[in-house]
Amino acid sequence: MSGSLRKGSYNTMLLNVAARLLPEDMEMNIVSIAELPHYNADLDLPDAAERPAAVATFRQQLAEAEGILISSPEYNYSIPGTLKNAIDWASRGTDSPLLNKPVALIGATPGGFGTVRMQAAFLPVFVFLNMKPVFKPEVLISHANQKFDEQGSLTDKAAEELIGKKLQALRDLILKSRP
Amino acid sequence: MSGSLRKGSYNTMLLNVAARLLPEDMEMNIVSIAELPHYNADLDLPDAAERPAAVATFRQQLAEAEGILISSPEYNYSIPGTLKNAIDWASRGTDSPLLNKPVALIGATPGGFGTVRMQAAFLPVFVFLNMKPVFKPEVLISHANQKFDEQGSLTDKAAEELIGKKLQALRDLILKSRP
Repeated sequence: MSGSLRKGSYNTMLLNVAARLLPEDMEMNIVSIAELPHYNADLDLPDAAERPAAVATFRQQLAEAEGILISSPEYNYSIPGTLKNAIDWASRGTDSPLLNKPVALIGATPGGFGTVRMQAAFLPVFVFLNMKPVFKPEVLISHANQKFDEQGSLTDKAAEELIGKKLQALRDLILKSRP
Repeated sequence: MSGSLRKGSYNTMLLNVAARLLPEDMEMNIVSIAELPHYNADLDLPDAAERPAAVATFRQQLAEAEGILISSPEYNYSIPGTLKNAIDWASRGTDSPLLNKPVALIGATPGGFGTVRMQAAFLPVFVFLNMKPVFKPEVLISHANQKFDEQGSLTDKAAEELIGKKLQALRDLILKSRP
């Protein structure tokens, strides 16, 4: 999932880059967080069928995934609210599709610090949900406005290599995590 | 503003408690974050008149305030996504109504740790926006489900006193911050 709704989002482009770098035995589906309502505990009912339709669909999509790749910008030195809202909706109940799940976090920003603070802000979230984060290699893409060509390919080949390694590490963690 | 949209929200109740404890020379208006769309940089235009109507209204309400009181639950050891989304919408541009503004953060939760991690997650946000947070006294209300009576009054009188002191500190900071 991408943490940005902007049409020309670098992070959405990054997901598409990742899709092309995927190990042969992996498949990736990009899920949208734009249709989710604002989180409201009154609507977050234990019975999945009674939750808002967009929430039920989103949780089902995550439940079908063995691992999650998140690519996100940093807003105000933290996680974009809309992305956190998606996490909030997926987080509740013992049937949460985030619990114990392998996750890889990457980020791109036009700024100079590559979303480091956004990625740090995710750590407590991962702890709460007992997710299995792939820490290394870290993918922190600074000056993103200079790093994609017109086809949406990464021109920073070192960054591209890191993304490939991150996906490989996510794959290995998923395989290890199978019951 | 309250970080929770739930009808019976403890944090919305806390705002109402705060309204009754307000120093005589302060006024408080509760603003809603529920109507804001998901943040989308494509819609966050420099010209306020071109922003989504709910965003323009929200930013105007904040601009009219000399200080901000936020009462919020903690979701997944962090800031509720919907609250962060509101902050994101208000944060952009040199006309951001959050820049340099006095802010007091309080929180209530049925859990045992009083929203400590939500409040910690706000610190980088305050840094980015150069806000002026009132750090002391800290208002961290645990076991909130046992601390309100049927009229929505706080039965925890020690907590109520802290809220009064926090408001007083916010007032003093606002006065000091006037040009």
